[in-house]
Amino acid sequence: MKIYGDSISGNCLKVKWVADSLGLSYDWIETDILAGQSRTPDYLAMNPAGQVPAVILDDGRPLAQSNAIILHLAEGSALIPADAYARAKMLEWMFWEQYSHEPYIAVARFQLAHLGKTLADLDPKVIPRGVAALQRMEDGLANTPFLAGDALSLADVALVAYTRVAEEGGGFDLSGYPRIKAWIPRVEKALKIAA
Amino acid sequence: MKIYGDSISGNCLKVKWVADSLGLSYDWIETDILAGQSRTPDYLAMNPAGQVPAVILDDGRPLAQSNAIILHLAEGSALIPADAYARAKMLEWMFWEQYSHEPYIAVARFQLAHLGKTLADLDPKVIPRGVAALQRMEDGLANTPFLAGDALSLADVALVAYTRVAEEGGGFDLSGYPRIKAWIPRVEKALKIAA
Repeated sequence: MKIYGDSISGNCLKVKWVADSLGLSYDWIETDILAGQSRTPDYLAMNPAGQVPAVILDDGRPLAQSNAIILHLAEGSALIPADAYARAKMLEWMFWEQYSHEPYIAVARFQLAHLGKTLADLDPKVIPRGVAALQRMEDGLANTPFLAGDALSLADVALVAYTRVAEEGGGFDLSGYPRIKAWIPRVEKALKIAA
Repeated sequence: MKIYGDSISGNCLKVKWVADSLGLSYDWIETDILAGQSRTPDYLAMNPAGQVPAVILDDGRPLAQSNAIILHLAEGSALIPADAYARAKMLEWMFWEQYSHEPYIAVARFQLAHLGKTLADLDPKVIPRGVAALQRMEDGLANTPFLAGDALSLADVALVAYTRVAEEGGGFDLSGYPRIKAWIPRVEKALKIAA
């Protein structure tokens, strides 16, 4: 497998972490989004959406969208709960991540840490909606150590990617979310990611 | 099953169409988002994200996020391809829908058709990104009658919901996308939705 990813992107790291966790072999092709490498004709032929990550599977076929890729790679593994309801809750968190978390938590961090913007440059919705997303996660961790239950799942992979670097977005202070603060190293340890 | 949905919301109609297509019995509880009915204490206890749709499954447990709900309801049915790659492509379209299509196509329509706004009121990114999303779909339908291959899948359900009413968003003209124009009634017919 070839993974086209930018190492600054949590969406791309999700794919790396799942591949590493499952012991899959792959070539990582560093793809610099700030240099336009996800918008070249060759790249767009592989992923017309022009986004990272994208993968070329071992049979030569392409696949895009971080959460679709990790669901495909992890099929049949312990990263996807065997119980149908737990699996549905995992998917609920993964779709919520892309709609209600990433556009605020990841975007604030990208603008501040990678584009050199300041908090005053951000769309005024970004910080309040990111704060609401963190509170939603804090509440979601009230009863179980991982988001979809007692075991690590792809929901944790999807959400830890940007939550662990949320403070780089300037307007977020994780010290107000004790369950998230405990959950991040729990997920990092389970995935064997360096903190 | 109880489905909490607002009939003006394509995200909610996805759940209704899949339930109808599979012959599932349910009670539809009309939930008026403009009247704040998805933000009451009772509703938030069921779905802390405060969004529609949400369902209460027959065993009493809640589930949210339109695409997670339809994936759960349709498990084991023909709406999810048996082939692993086709299934992954279906998921790619479904995550793309929530990140790159719904925030522009659905939001423009909601602002204009339901909040009484004008095109000038929209975030200037909304129309160009919606146009790019439609072109991505047009390109995606170049080789197959449905988005994930030769048969209807949840990718078509997820994307037809707002694409069929895209023109209500003011800045979109479907006549420029002949494959989408042919695909919409194809999906409506397969789902037995009135055009």
